[in-house]
Amino acid sequence: MDTTSDTRLRLLDSARSLIHLRGYGAVGVAEICARSGVRKGSFYHFFPSKQALTLAMLETQFESFESQLLKPAFDRRTPPMERFSTFLHKLHDYQARSMTETGHLPGCPFGNLGLELAAQDESIRIKVESILQRIRAYFQAALEEAVEQGSLVDIDPRATAEAMLAYLEGVLLMARTRNEAGVILDLGPAVLGIRVASAGQ
Amino acid sequence: MDTTSDTRLRLLDSARSLIHLRGYGAVGVAEICARSGVRKGSFYHFFPSKQALTLAMLETQFESFESQLLKPAFDRRTPPMERFSTFLHKLHDYQARSMTETGHLPGCPFGNLGLELAAQDESIRIKVESILQRIRAYFQAALEEAVEQGSLVDIDPRATAEAMLAYLEGVLLMARTRNEAGVILDLGPAVLGIRVASAGQ
Repeated sequence: MDTTSDTRLRLLDSARSLIHLRGYGAVGVAEICARSGVRKGSFYHFFPSKQALTLAMLETQFESFESQLLKPAFDRRTPPMERFSTFLHKLHDYQARSMTETGHLPGCPFGNLGLELAAQDESIRIKVESILQRIRAYFQAALEEAVEQGSLVDIDPRATAEAMLAYLEGVLLMARTRNEAGVILDLGPAVLGIRVASAGQ
Repeated sequence: MDTTSDTRLRLLDSARSLIHLRGYGAVGVAEICARSGVRKGSFYHFFPSKQALTLAMLETQFESFESQLLKPAFDRRTPPMERFSTFLHKLHDYQARSMTETGHLPGCPFGNLGLELAAQDESIRIKVESILQRIRAYFQAALEEAVEQGSLVDIDPRATAEAMLAYLEGVLLMARTRNEAGVILDLGPAVLGIRVASAGQ
């Protein structure tokens, strides 16, 4: 049992490093197997296809992202709007560290695959969309608290949370395209000023 | 001569439709040739590689984007901040029209390839980065006019232009991932409120 689950985890882990850096189209099952030290026949014992592996990988990737970045940054003991600044610094540190290791800024694993595959693979598009909504929920909860505390007024917390997420995805796109982690610290803080007014404003 | 340049244009045009919708990795030279009605041997008469075709395609794509969207929206006779609203509506209309034709929202042709290829192809990454800077220059010129006219104060026009561009790239990423053009009209207008303060503010 241990060896079996270990093989599955090795495949997920290799797929994650390779696909996050270079995208879905550029990475094949053979390369994922080679990096994992797993024979191709065994791959299909665990996953019927690269698509199935990618769907499972996205879930484990969200779980690490949630436990390592989202949950610590969006701790309810931190004042609501400060949570976004903490999140931004954690994002920057993660991206800068990956750049040191690989020479390339990886960007958002969810946004990257969403853009690459939206018109090609409906199940991956839907998976990415659902992960973006789970991130949005953290942002929205912080904004709702800021509204309750009176530090934000007349905003639509859900739409503002989506706009803030869109902005951070855009900042990561610019940072990856320029291959410079500093872009995250230069442009990122403007996320705090993004507002979508509540209906009727 | 006419037939020769016509073949080259057909190749560029097919690559543009196929790659904008499905990305670089998912589209091969054979498919581009088939759609253009060009034999594979002829392809290599015009372009040494898919990479070379893509670099030429990005330039023609920027030229159409500039003449059809950027120049009309950023007309100097329009008040500076209104230019962004005009641009947003043109972006929406283009994306909605493509969705009607293909069933998929294409997103930004430059941002899509920037994210997909940043860690794979340095010359395409640099080409996309230079195109994003050319778009940023239109935004920046409008912001500088708004500052001169006194309708914006204490902003860094270059950094604000980059932040606005990052936001619109993020909005297109969200719209493509949700496959809904309405996202552009829902989230887009918040671009007008994005500010990066000038140094010392």
